[in-house]
Amino acid sequence: MIKTILGEIDFIESLRGKRASFMLSLSNTDTINIEGITQAGIPGLIHLTPTLDSEFVCVGEVRCLENIAETPKGVPTPALMTRAVHLIKPFSYIELLDLGLKVTPKVNYFTIHDFDIKPSGSIDVGANIDAEAIFQKGINFGQNYECESEYIILGESVPSGTTTASATAEALGYDVEDKFSSSFKNVPNSIKSETIKKALSNIKDRDDLFAILSKVADNMLIFNAGFILGLNGRIKVILAGGTQMAGVLLIVNSILRYMGGEMDSSNLALCTTKWVAEDKNSDIKALLEMLDFPINAYFADFDFSSSTHPALKLYDEGEAKEGVGAGGALVYGLINGVKKEEIISQVEAFLG
Amino acid sequence: MIKTILGEIDFIESLRGKRASFMLSLSNTDTINIEGITQAGIPGLIHLTPTLDSEFVCVGEVRCLENIAETPKGVPTPALMTRAVHLIKPFSYIELLDLGLKVTPKVNYFTIHDFDIKPSGSIDVGANIDAEAIFQKGINFGQNYECESEYIILGESVPSGTTTASATAEALGYDVEDKFSSSFKNVPNSIKSETIKKALSNIKDRDDLFAILSKVADNMLIFNAGFILGLNGRIKVILAGGTQMAGVLLIVNSILRYMGGEMDSSNLALCTTKWVAEDKNSDIKALLEMLDFPINAYFADFDFSSSTHPALKLYDEGEAKEGVGAGGALVYGLINGVKKEEIISQVEAFLG
Repeated sequence: MIKTILGEIDFIESLRGKRASFMLSLSNTDTINIEGITQAGIPGLIHLTPTLDSEFVCVGEVRCLENIAETPKGVPTPALMTRAVHLIKPFSYIELLDLGLKVTPKVNYFTIHDFDIKPSGSIDVGANIDAEAIFQKGINFGQNYECESEYIILGESVPSGTTTASATAEALGYDVEDKFSSSFKNVPNSIKSETIKKALSNIKDRDDLFAILSKVADNMLIFNAGFILGLNGRIKVILAGGTQMAGVLLIVNSILRYMGGEMDSSNLALCTTKWVAEDKNSDIKALLEMLDFPINAYFADFDFSSSTHPALKLYDEGEAKEGVGAGGALVYGLINGVKKEEIISQVEAFLG
Repeated sequence: MIKTILGEIDFIESLRGKRASFMLSLSNTDTINIEGITQAGIPGLIHLTPTLDSEFVCVGEVRCLENIAETPKGVPTPALMTRAVHLIKPFSYIELLDLGLKVTPKVNYFTIHDFDIKPSGSIDVGANIDAEAIFQKGINFGQNYECESEYIILGESVPSGTTTASATAEALGYDVEDKFSSSFKNVPNSIKSETIKKALSNIKDRDDLFAILSKVADNMLIFNAGFILGLNGRIKVILAGGTQMAGVLLIVNSILRYMGGEMDSSNLALCTTKWVAEDKNSDIKALLEMLDFPINAYFADFDFSSSTHPALKLYDEGEAKEGVGAGGALVYGLINGVKKEEIISQVEAFLG
């Protein structure tokens, strides 16, 4: 039920039966305001998507709006899969990382880590992030975080995050053409590539690594790169996501090169969905193979082929593929004895 | 679903819902080279059985050979039951005890405790074990072991281990005739009893307890006797096995008599399979009743009667009965809400 993208099965096998803290990193970037760049949410309210996603994962309802986030085509947020797993085989803890949200999630009794980070700007005109400060906040968090469970599953909800991740990787010099995923089936390549082109045009020759990140990245990418480096293998971490999480790792890689450092990656893995792993319009494996350090990567052999719900069929058709830690959550469920059909039934129940 | 052999149901009832560390004690004895003594593995490669068993339990595949261990009659290793339970309701930790393996299991991320112990010799010519040193290693391990879970399930994989256990119990003066089990249905009593006879003939009148163990026992029996005495009730332990684990307890009993000591056995229990508990060719209850201390003992009311797979039917017919902690694993599954049919389906799935 778990398939290997890179590395060996042993890492994920060793996590069977262990308790997990599910952490959701949430951020807004004004890149979403570029017409047609993302479908991760309700038009005009896409900035609410991370807030709604995190509310739904935590408490099973959305509070900052009357409906869960879905695309204009009616694809429901991947948060449904994460919540479904949590209902069947709960995470021991859910913690939220506010990495620059416009609207704070309305949940009590759940830890919301507040780092005093502002939403980032649109990358076509420059994201205007204090990248060094955000990175340092990630480092500090990683160095000091006390985990109540045996490992962390780190997800994200950042609309238009694949665009910022793709721009970042390209700006850092990686050859990533056609390797980053999208929430669209028919990827609006012209809008996306034009945005990335504009973003890259803001970079000056004299810009160092952090100056580049300040212009083209997003808070989630930068903070989590710091978080991972701050942890330095002290706690086992599953990066629960697709090419955005690969983008985090590429930043880590560049920082290690830039600073001449090393990192213990043996306690780190990436877990994503089948839709990302088998996506013909992106190549997560190729992205991970660009890293100088070894990385275990897996995907959950889960799809909606046995479901009759039309909105879920859209996943299998390539509309929406990952997000809100869905891939990692599915892997967590599967290594803890949850059956694929149980998850499908629960997701269907959410949709009524 | 759990039946009592000795003691009260309360001990095992109190473990419902608690997290377990599954420990697998692995050892080779050259006793396997006696023609016809064991069917626990592939002829000529029986020494690999503990290695393959532990690989399969940990990661679901065998790495030191292309196939899982099975008997010449096609009875698959009981490791299938242990792994099946682990997939449905995972143990929190799996740890391996290398008590003298010829080939180290190829698994990463799983703790393999290495005690620098060599495989033991064939008991017909003298096992040539430094019993006092092995026992002391067990004591030290028991005194210092930090358990990450709430109890330990201690299994074993030692081919021809019922022969060494039976020889040991007899050598220590217990009346064990026809009380020890075998992996065979039609027990090759002549070979087995001749081997035991030869083993006992090596014992001299002046041999003390440890000198006797050095000649007729195996590393698993001696180490685990030390382990249990070292723990002295500090952590709850389920001895997951049949008459071999009864043999461990008989050694504990003899050592207590020999040294004039006492042990708190209230946190100790033995859990085995129905095939052992109801075996007409052995008598585990009688063995346990020889102990000077009280012991709780249970068996999992589990069989393959509802399966149509011919290889599994052989278990119900008395070929292979226990091993690789199967009895304890089944009990663990059953006290955690796993249904008999789920386990059967999973085992069938392994066999294809």
